[in-house]
Amino acid sequence: MASNRFGELFTITTWGESHGKAIGVVIDGCPAGVALDEAMINEELERRAPGRSPHTSPRKERDQAEILSGVFEGRTTGTPISIMIRNSDPDSSKYEPIKHLLRPGHGNYTYLEKYGMFDYRGGGRASARETACRVAAGAVAKQLLKMEEIFVVAYIKQIEENRVEHLPSDFHKLLHAVRSSKLSIPCAQTEDAVIATLERARAEGDSLGGLVEFQIHGAPVGLGDPIYQKLEARLAAGMMSIPASKGFEIGSGFSAVQMAGSENNDIYSRTGEEVRTESNHAGGILAGISTGMPIVGRVAFKPTSSIKKTQSTLDLKGEEAQFTLPEGSRHDPCLALRAPAIVEAMAALTVADSLLMNRSARI
Amino acid sequence: MASNRFGELFTITTWGESHGKAIGVVIDGCPAGVALDEAMINEELERRAPGRSPHTSPRKERDQAEILSGVFEGRTTGTPISIMIRNSDPDSSKYEPIKHLLRPGHGNYTYLEKYGMFDYRGGGRASARETACRVAAGAVAKQLLKMEEIFVVAYIKQIEENRVEHLPSDFHKLLHAVRSSKLSIPCAQTEDAVIATLERARAEGDSLGGLVEFQIHGAPVGLGDPIYQKLEARLAAGMMSIPASKGFEIGSGFSAVQMAGSENNDIYSRTGEEVRTESNHAGGILAGISTGMPIVGRVAFKPTSSIKKTQSTLDLKGEEAQFTLPEGSRHDPCLALRAPAIVEAMAALTVADSLLMNRSARI
Amino acid sequence: MASNRFGELFTITTWGESHGKAIGVVIDGCPAGVALDEAMINEELERRAPGRSPHTSPRKERDQAEILSGVFEGRTTGTPISIMIRNSDPDSSKYEPIKHLLRPGHGNYTYLEKYGMFDYRGGGRASARETACRVAAGAVAKQLLKMEEIFVVAYIKQIEENRVEHLPSDFHKLLHAVRSSKLSIPCAQTEDAVIATLERARAEGDSLGGLVEFQIHGAPVGLGDPIYQKLEARLAAGMMSIPASKGFEIGSGFSAVQMAGSENNDIYSRTGEEVRTESNHAGGILAGISTGMPIVGRVAFKPTSSIKKTQSTLDLKGEEAQFTLPEGSRHDPCLALRAPAIVEAMAALTVADSLLMNRSARI
Amino acid sequence: MASNRFGELFTITTWGESHGKAIGVVIDGCPAGVALDEAMINEELERRAPGRSPHTSPRKERDQAEILSGVFEGRTTGTPISIMIRNSDPDSSKYEPIKHLLRPGHGNYTYLEKYGMFDYRGGGRASARETACRVAAGAVAKQLLKMEEIFVVAYIKQIEENRVEHLPSDFHKLLHAVRSSKLSIPCAQTEDAVIATLERARAEGDSLGGLVEFQIHGAPVGLGDPIYQKLEARLAAGMMSIPASKGFEIGSGFSAVQMAGSENNDIYSRTGEEVRTESNHAGGILAGISTGMPIVGRVAFKPTSSIKKTQSTLDLKGEEAQFTLPEGSRHDPCLALRAPAIVEAMAALTVADSLLMNRSARI
Repeated sequence: MASNRFGELFTITTWGESHGKAIGVVIDGCPAGVALDEAMINEELERRAPGRSPHTSPRKERDQAEILSGVFEGRTTGTPISIMIRNSDPDSSKYEPIKHLLRPGHGNYTYLEKYGMFDYRGGGRASARETACRVAAGAVAKQLLKMEEIFVVAYIKQIEENRVEHLPSDFHKLLHAVRSSKLSIPCAQTEDAVIATLERARAEGDSLGGLVEFQIHGAPVGLGDPIYQKLEARLAAGMMSIPASKGFEIGSGFSAVQMAGSENNDIYSRTGEEVRTESNHAGGILAGISTGMPIVGRVAFKPTSSIKKTQSTLDLKGEEAQFTLPEGSRHDPCLALRAPAIVEAMAALTVADSLLMNRSARI
Repeated sequence: MASNRFGELFTITTWGESHGKAIGVVIDGCPAGVALDEAMINEELERRAPGRSPHTSPRKERDQAEILSGVFEGRTTGTPISIMIRNSDPDSSKYEPIKHLLRPGHGNYTYLEKYGMFDYRGGGRASARETACRVAAGAVAKQLLKMEEIFVVAYIKQIEENRVEHLPSDFHKLLHAVRSSKLSIPCAQTEDAVIATLERARAEGDSLGGLVEFQIHGAPVGLGDPIYQKLEARLAAGMMSIPASKGFEIGSGFSAVQMAGSENNDIYSRTGEEVRTESNHAGGILAGISTGMPIVGRVAFKPTSSIKKTQSTLDLKGEEAQFTLPEGSRHDPCLALRAPAIVEAMAALTVADSLLMNRSARI
Repeated sequence: MASNRFGELFTITTWGESHGKAIGVVIDGCPAGVALDEAMINEELERRAPGRSPHTSPRKERDQAEILSGVFEGRTTGTPISIMIRNSDPDSSKYEPIKHLLRPGHGNYTYLEKYGMFDYRGGGRASARETACRVAAGAVAKQLLKMEEIFVVAYIKQIEENRVEHLPSDFHKLLHAVRSSKLSIPCAQTEDAVIATLERARAEGDSLGGLVEFQIHGAPVGLGDPIYQKLEARLAAGMMSIPASKGFEIGSGFSAVQMAGSENNDIYSRTGEEVRTESNHAGGILAGISTGMPIVGRVAFKPTSSIKKTQSTLDLKGEEAQFTLPEGSRHDPCLALRAPAIVEAMAALTVADSLLMNRSARI
Repeated sequence: MASNRFGELFTITTWGESHGKAIGVVIDGCPAGVALDEAMINEELERRAPGRSPHTSPRKERDQAEILSGVFEGRTTGTPISIMIRNSDPDSSKYEPIKHLLRPGHGNYTYLEKYGMFDYRGGGRASARETACRVAAGAVAKQLLKMEEIFVVAYIKQIEENRVEHLPSDFHKLLHAVRSSKLSIPCAQTEDAVIATLERARAEGDSLGGLVEFQIHGAPVGLGDPIYQKLEARLAAGMMSIPASKGFEIGSGFSAVQMAGSENNDIYSRTGEEVRTESNHAGGILAGISTGMPIVGRVAFKPTSSIKKTQSTLDLKGEEAQFTLPEGSRHDPCLALRAPAIVEAMAALTVADSLLMNRSARI
């Protein structure tokens, strides 16, 4: 079905289960000539890694990407780039006791009904571990975007009630603030509040959702392809394919429901030769095509489904049962904290693809 | 680029400009054997039509679909179904005076920059008129879904501050309430309030956004394909390709940001032999695959960009200018009111496609 | 299934049955800025038309293409180009008596088994009439290729034993010879022999196969995409999708089976700055990528399946029966004679698509 | 560009260079429930292996497939199946002296011009080594086909003048004869003649082309999708993507050029309840859809481009040069001898894909 593939020209196909030998991604369609090495990829993987702060899952994996093809003498060759990440934490015996239970908020029931079988160990294919492959591929896309001076950043905008209200107005300051924060929260005060909230959730054995905002700077006018490959449609598809995502919005988003047209319309003006708009409710996209303004959107994530509290459920025979996380399971009370690296990857992949597609717009 | 195409197996390709001879859609991949005639399509088109109530655009078009191929003796044959709708309102001279101006909130600037040219008459390809083709194709998808007893409905959930708080709990009552309302608002009280708000906006020459909710009933467990063809990702792509859409959410959506895992997780239970969940924060989808519960989501629409108020802008040379809608232009103060028919169409197309894709899941 | 679609970036979707209201094609992905009008398309359609010479089917259709979208002020706009051709010869009553018979060499049996139904009138979707849409779309592709100074020609190489042995060595002379011949045979002597053979076949109520050769001049080095989108693989797919085609070869083709490597290898040499090869057994393609030499291949066509002779067959119940063409049926004793226009179209479409794909090869 | 992908529903993406760390394939879209293990794959790889007889390349690689994902408890799970084959013969220093020369018959010039760079070691991505991945994926497709009792076989039909004239009429005898021959030649007499020819070519330092025939038994009526995904078009694309292939034909193929319609048409008859045709010039396909008869076609391969004879050429600066194979290079005088395993794989992949596509033909 090619359902593990993303993109039209700059395409990725990811593979692998949480407790299999390895996971990986094949990038098919990256132009020749992009500088690339494993260190660049591992740096991105590091930002997604659990155990990066005391507030995310303590699993001590250190994902190491291995480039198996497609790079020669430090540059991409136009052939498929195969990247593999070995799985290093393969003890799956603890999943035995729960393999017959429908896990609340998880996909084991739907996978089983769809396919008639499921590699239940550690979430199998449905595990968030798959997102490491997105991040690895996103690192390649970012290298391509860098050559066009396009940059992507994503950060925590809100966890529970704690919301970042003020951002650095300058993009590079923003980038610095995000990269300096262990939780990718570009506001120290909010970060402190989030840490307190996380500790409370952890103590309660419960979990938290979160809101991630992304910005793409430097995109030229013209990216995105009407009608069904509009830039916001492709971004939405990419973001809504991330595990635990529940919503996507671009620019003014859901708040546009309560705005007047005279308020929501962005007025064109000029700075030197450059056409710009005074506000950016459009989020950098009009009629599916980028305007040259920053592309700004947000992705909502649900709270982690795996919690320490016991929950009622059914077993595979339909009998009532109680679901409790196995002893020794990692508990990541807020998956959204790992999402910024993934959101950046999906944004970078989408824009890289749109850049290539845009090369066919004119004679 | 095939960017005017939607779907993998049940695919549509739409074509046509607002002021060209016709618009149309080719459906490639509809299985043979679906009952279909033009009346079924025209009935759906009627629900999208402007001028259906005094509160939408007064254009007196009555779209008539013509089936040109793919149907024989009242049933689809498995070959492409070509549907054409003639354009009947071709006076485009009034667009002359504004063709050199960047229209706030419109795509004429981005189209021009991307393609180097633009059929500016009536919005050209960027016109919402294209959505009639989606509705026509959606009518075909609905015929297929009906055979599997899957039904789709969409309705206005909110316009400005006016929000439908209580819905009929039974699906058929909901459907009846939606179909009985000229504005697709399944609550008479809210409908009255919306009409007052529309009158105010019209008097001010301004416009309103809106929120549309959709529900899909009867979908079996198993629709949607991990990882990048998750059902919510495909729905998001479809909805975010609708003109003026700014956001998409599934189930608890953005409100999940502030929920605890113990609250957002849906608990499995049983009604007779049927597995169900007690709440439906998942919106009928887990890990990208339908759960058998109703699929529920929402789409946010911005206020109509074309307003009667004069707005500052630039001309194509970059000089400052004033933009005023030409005399005699239709003014549709709330495009969201026409959106439910389109949202239904995109939902039906997405589910029809997922149904076919699901046929390959197992040996 | 999108099985009525050809191409990745420059894509076409054709629709329509032989005896429906119309047939047509939607071109999605043609870059903006290509000069185009209906006359250019009709000129190509004329070359495919039956009744063009006494030796092809006498049907007096004169296909008239109508451009419904995608062209503005004489140039393509980057939006879908919809082209429709009305069917003008809709009497289908004569097919009634044979609708229950399996037609030797035709697709009515396989369509019926696959889809459970079939619009049997005039061949329905399986009719060679569909190829008019390819020719119309090919005309657009040729306009794009012309801007890159790439030209395509196809001609009859052999009918039964009559083979064109000597071609004009210069491409423009070849083109002239082909365009001057009513039967697209660039050798007057062979043309005469073919006419005699055709008259014999017509008198016998039998039919003839034929071999069509194509040449593409001016293609730059670099077209075609390894591994599965090799230029010869894409050409093969295009050519083998033409009704009645039975074989495809590139360069030395099947004769390579009996050649030595030292004979088949083309030796590189130089003319001024230009790298060329002294022979062209490669047919202008190495490792799936064009070499800059002319791209040369051949397509084999079977004899027309509809013949005037009575043939044994079965009816739909499996009973033995006799199949005789209905009185008044057109009889086209050699469909291959109409094939050069179609082969040119498929070559042009393939190369146009490869041109766009090649824009993504490098940073 | 996804140009390293084959298939629509049952899709493969191959990756890897001849002298990189590994090569591999990701199968995305294999239904859940197919029995699979590494031994099944390695058995197929063995049949493609060089060094299998004294008459093919002496490279002592023994390809070992490693399944990295997508299989659980001995069955496919519906998730991507990643298969990796390590490269074991990585000495590439001998390619240094020729890296600046255009290799006659090879793709190094076209790759360089297209991508601006090329991993020249051992042919890089253009190496026939990539076909091991096709064979590995084909082994998975064969497992799926086996469940539907569909079987594929390919064999040498002709090398130079040596042609297999008589085949066992029974499919299982044919299969046995092919599998019993080290050179996949189902006729001992021809095999002896081929061996003599090979020895002559080897002595001369020259190479030979060859013709491979394939047969698919057990395919039901209905596979293949009109218009552009006709079964023969998809087979052609698959076969013409194999390195060194120069031609493809189905059924009567190129010989149809000289046949009369009354001769080429296959007459329908019945054996019990089963509809069949008395001859099979159609090669088992009518109008792009399988007829239920055996699917039979042929693929022409050019002689190996790498020969021991010195050939004139140019260097990258355009200066005249002499090309000689490096000392110690393997010399495989007839690549066609390794092709049957690859042709079988492409046939199996194509039919597996068509089987899945056919599931969407009807309601």
